Order: sequence, then structure tokens, then C-alpha cells
Amino acid sequence: MLKSFLSVTAMVTLSAGVIAQETINTPGASVTSPQIVNDSTVTIRIFAPQARHASVVGDLNGEMARDSEGVWSATFSSLPPELYCYAIEIDGVRLNDPSNVHRVRDIATVSDYFILPGDTALPYTVNPSTAHGTVSKVWYPSPATGTSRRLTVYTPSGYEQNPSAPYPVLYLLHGTGGDENSWGELGRATQILDNLIAEGKARPMIVVMPNANMTEQAAPGESPRGLVTPDAKLSALLPGMFEETFDEIVSFTDSTYRTIPTADNRAVAGLSRGGLHTLGIALLRPDDFGYLGMFSAAIGTDAEKASAPYRDLDNRLVRLANSDPQIVIAIGNDDFLYENNVEFRKRLDDLGISYTYIESEGGHSWRNWRKYLTRLLPSLFRNNQ
Amino acid sequence: MLKSFLSVTAMVTLSAGVIAQETINTPGASVTSPQIVNDSTVTIRIFAPQARHASVVGDLNGEMARDSEGVWSATFSSLPPELYCYAIEIDGVRLNDPSNVHRVRDIATVSDYFILPGDTALPYTVNPSTAHGTVSKVWYPSPATGTSRRLTVYTPSGYEQNPSAPYPVLYLLHGTGGDENSWGELGRATQILDNLIAEGKARPMIVVMPNANMTEQAAPGESPRGLVTPDAKLSALLPGMFEETFDEIVSFTDSTYRTIPTADNRAVAGLSRGGLHTLGIALLRPDDFGYLGMFSAAIGTDAEKASAPYRDLDNRLVRLANSDPQIVIAIGNDDFLYENNVEFRKRLDDLGISYTYIESEGGHSWRNWRKYLTRLLPSLFRNNQ
Repeated sequence: MLKSFLSVTAMVTLSAGVIAQETINTPGASVTSPQIVNDSTVTIRIFAPQARHASVVGDLNGEMARDSEGVWSATFSSLPPELYCYAIEIDGVRLNDPSNVHRVRDIATVSDYFILPGDTALPYTVNPSTAHGTVSKVWYPSPATGTSRRLTVYTPSGYEQNPSAPYPVLYLLHGTGGDENSWGELGRATQILDNLIAEGKARPMIVVMPNANMTEQAAPGESPRGLVTPDAKLSALLPGMFEETFDEIVSFTDSTYRTIPTADNRAVAGLSRGGLHTLGIALLRPDDFGYLGMFSAAIGTDAEKASAPYRDLDNRLVRLANSDPQIVIAIGNDDFLYENNVEFRKRLDDLGISYTYIESEGGHSWRNWRKYLTRLLPSLFRNNQ
Repeated sequence: MLKSFLSVTAMVTLSAGVIAQETINTPGASVTSPQIVNDSTVTIRIFAPQARHASVVGDLNGEMARDSEGVWSATFSSLPPELYCYAIEIDGVRLNDPSNVHRVRDIATVSDYFILPGDTALPYTVNPSTAHGTVSKVWYPSPATGTSRRLTVYTPSGYEQNPSAPYPVLYLLHGTGGDENSWGELGRATQILDNLIAEGKARPMIVVMPNANMTEQAAPGESPRGLVTPDAKLSALLPGMFEETFDEIVSFTDSTYRTIPTADNRAVAGLSRGGLHTLGIALLRPDDFGYLGMFSAAIGTDAEKASAPYRDLDNRLVRLANSDPQIVIAIGNDDFLYENNVEFRKRLDDLGISYTYIESEGGHSWRNWRKYLTRLLPSLFRNNQ
């Protein structure tokens, strides 16, 4: 038995080394980084013997110190449970931690990340005993663009095993520069849904995460445009088009999945520009969505003024309010869109339209959007129970 | 109209800047890299004014030169169509190209990549007019490990729209250090399948890509183990277990998807250690798989000798040959497992067992495995036509 074990280990070492030919040998991969102690202290390390200066930047910020072997390190203590993004800056160049394979992309920036488990971060971690939903990348036909377009669909645990059960649907929208992968990556939407549904805090639901960039068919690397670095400007070129053509996505969803195609079982929520889209989609279809979630919504902006769905806004809002959708508005007190949301809420107040308001610390960040989703999900699809 | 356009652009710029708060400002993101000219010349650039030395490493290798602004660059010409992986090394530290968001992970190494389109690379690109299959991340129950485990399932275009059509199944296995994401990432299996099926070169099929690391439930970031950097040794600790428990995956697939549960409609193929697994799975179930694909297979190794499925190998091979499966063996002439495969083929020859042999240039690399998959797919599921 001992002999077998040793032989196997030797084989694996050889094989892994040769597989790595395809990629590249990694200097410094032998250091441990990030090293997490007691779920609250983190050390970031990098082997860079020739560097003159190194620092950690991102959700954590601090100078790194060099040891005699050329390993730089920085330790951060007493950190609250959360998902942390960071990068390392060496002599003015930002790089990802070569010892950490966990990376997420936001627009054109890739960061390393880790999760400190605990109360706040709990919905973001994978629970070993929790039933998991299925996450699918699906292409739907888009007559408006003459193409097919990619979206992400979450179906809850039990969907395949209960072939006659219908489900409500949440449409969950990204912001400027995002795509159909964003909520599943930095948003940790899969884990949040799995955990809240397993705990009975949210109803089992289908969640559809489309791509709102109408000039794109899919996220980078999955698109016929080839391997082009995403350009945040692209999504601005067609104001109103995503909102106006949203029926393509609803029709595809209702015809492909076992949905309950009524307003009481249909929600739409989004972050930043997706928060604006949420409003526009509902304004254009005032009887179709029972629940709206506007996270750090880009309302009252030039993007809104350029888009047809938001013209004659007061009358449209009154018409929408006739259907009495549940409206949740969430924003951080440091958000650059905070005043815009104050104005929008005043507008709703003046029109006598009710809504739930969530104000958090912080700004325009995924850290807040994860929390808002965690807050929103338990409130959805309760009218029909 | 002009006014609207300008306003929207201003808004987007502001919004993108603030969203980036969550990640990190990217020095050097303003340079273009990789820059591709005429589908055959590529320039890699990085802004690193304080660097003393910079080079490109990986599928492309070359020194970078510094301009007066501190931008380093290297140009590679007359490159054949292919998918290229690379990284940048600055003063001994390997880093990813901050201007390229396209990255793939192989075990614990993340590389940048780009694709030069053309004959060889054609099946790896996304064709805008091609119908696309659905790629799902699904969890299956694993009584053997007492957990649920994650796998990737490709269902071809038309699967949802033809609710009575059954499909053959290919089980596609990764190598040591890989996981359920590997074939979809560095393997470009989704694009290869979409393109060959659309062209009528491969039959529409379901493809199941499991995780063979029996000590893991899922790929890094998706696993309850938390955000732990993958350890290539883990998968070696349970020799034979993946092969012996493979029925869990077949049962789940046959009960969840519209499969044709016969040997003529069931194939298994894998790379490196997955090539060994392919053989072991078939040896244990000699009547269940009509097609076997062994890519750079880790046969004749200590890993094999430590595993129960490969004992009494000649008799097992003869028993397997009674069912006459189609066997494809593919390997590069530089592969460190080349001689092992020579010996294995001699063994098959001596036993009078027939197989198809593909020998390519190169070694133990994804570049070869993508080609072998492209060669294998058209030959599958033809016995029953």
C-alpha cells in the first residue's frame, strides 16, 4: 500500500509538470497566498526577488515587506466575513497573485479574490450539504438583432426531478460593462440562490441573467466578435433597445422553461444601468412584472434621458403603479448615484407610489449588490401564497 | 441625436470608472494587447516603466523591448491559425497581460490567450450564424462519496425544441489536475461541438464532462472546500475510484437527459490520466461503451499499476474486444507518454485487437487534445446509422 501511494505521487508530479508545458512554469507558485488564519487574518505573498516595491491593492490595501528569500508579504487582520478582491502592484505594474487561481473579471479588470466565511459572507459560500441548482448558458433567438444571443439560466434543485412543477422567474440584470456572466461571478448569485432556497428563505425560482449589450451576442471569449477586450462604451450605443426588445427574452423563457407566466410570478431586478433597465422594462409592460428591484439604479441620468422608455415618466409611473408592483430601491450612502435616487424616490413620493427602501454603507460596488440580492430574494413571489 | 449620443457616452465613462472602484484601477490598461494584424501577426504590450527586463513566455516566447514611454512590446509574425496561451515575465515575476481579459486556467496556472482564425483554429471560434448548444453546470448525487458532485453537460442545439428526440452521449474526461470545467475552457469543446454539429460533421450528441478528482466535489471556487488553490496530488489519492464509481454518472445522465442507453450510443474519451480512466471504465463495463478515445493516455504508468481496474489486463482487454468497441488512440510524437503508448499498442496488436491510431506533432498539450477531439467526434455513433 505504501509503495502504491508513493508511485502514484511520483507519477502525478511528472504528469503535472509536463502538462504545465502548455502553459508556463510559474515562479513563486510555491508560496502560499492567500493564507487565511482563523477566518479573519489574511496574508498575501509573492516571490519577486528583483522587485523594488510591492503592495496589495483593491478591497485590501497595504505595503508588502520583502524577506531575505525575495518573498514579499502583507498581512491583514480582524477582517469581517466578506468576499475580498485584490491585486498586487509591483513597481507600478498591477498583476494577479500567481498563487491564487480564484479570479473574477469586472469589465476589463481581473482581480484575485477570497472569501472569509461567517455571517455576512455565508450566502456566498458553497454549502456541502445544500442541494444545488443548475446553471446553464443558453442561446436565444433575437429577431430584433437578427442573431442569437447568450444568457445564463439558473434552475433550482428539483427542477429536473419534478417535471410537472412550474416556477416563478426572476430576470436579473447586470450594469454597464457587465454581461450574462456577471451575476454568477462577482455576484455569487448561484451560491446565494442555492443557500436561501435550501434554507426556505427564498422560493424555488428560475433566474434568467441576460446580456444587455445589444451590440454583443455573448460575453468575451464566447462571442463571434472574437477575443476582443470588452468596451464599456458599446452598451451605450443603443439606448432603450434592451428594454424595448425584452419580450424576446421573456418569450424564450416562457416557451423553454416551466414558468408561471403571470405578473405575480415574474420579477425583474438589476444593478446600476440594470436598475434603470428594470424600471424601463416595467414602464413598457406595466402589467407584466409583480416585483421590481433597483440596485444603485442609474436613474435620472443622461442615459435615461436619451431613452424612449423613460419619456413622459410621471404618467408612465402612474400607469405602472396601477398594477401595484412591489418596488425595492437599494443604494449605498456613498454611491455616486445617491442623489439621483433621492430625487427618484421624491418623485415616487409625490406621485403617491409606495416602495421599500434599503440604504447601506458604501458605494457602487458588488459588495453591496450581493447584499441587496440577498435582501430582495426572500420578498419575491409572496403575493400568491 | 448627436447630443444624446454624447450625453450617453459621458454617463458611461463616469459609471464605468466608479464600478471599477470595486476592483482596481489598471495601470497600462490603455495599451492595446494583444494586437492582431492580418490574422497572423501579434504584438504583446505592457506598460511597465520601472521594469528592467520583460519577455513573453508560453506558446510564444521572445524578449520585449521598451519604448521611451515605458511600454514594452514584442511582435510575432507568420503565426499559423491556432489558440495561443502566453504570459508576461517582468524581472522574474510571471504575470498576466493586464490588457487582455481572456484567460484560462490549467491546474494552478492562469494564462492569457487569443485565437488566430483560419483552417486549424476554425472549430475553436464562435460562428455567428451557427446554432449553439447549451452548457450546464449540474450537480449529481454520489452515494459512493456521500456528497453531490458537479459536472458539465453539453446539450446540442434543438434539444429543448425537440422534446421527444433522444441523443447519444459522449463522456469526456479531463487529466490530472483538471476538473469539470477543463474541456470547456482550454479544450474549447463547446465551440468544437457547435461547429462540427452545425456542419453535419458530427452527430448531435449530449456530452458529459465530469470531475474525476474524487476528493473534490467541484472545480475551484465552486466547491465547498472554499477557495483553495488546486493541488494536483489530490486526484491521485484514490486510484481506481473514479473508474469504479462511474456508474453513478451514467445513471444520473440516463435518468436526467434524453439519452439512448445502449453501447452503440455511448462513448467515453479522455486526455492523459483521463485516457487511462477511459480504458478503465470500459474494462470494468466491457459491454457498455461502443467508442473509446484515448488521448495522450497515461497508460503503463505507476498510476495504472496501483489501480484495481487494470489488473489482469490482457484478459480484460480480450473480454472488452469481444464487444468490438471502436478504439481511437492519439498521441504526439514528443509526448513523454509516447513509449508507453507504443507498448500499449503492441499489446493490443499481440492480442489481435484493432484500433485507429493518430500520431501528431508535439507533446502533452491542449493544442493536441483539441485536435484529437475534432478528429474523434465525426467518427462517433456511426454504427447505428
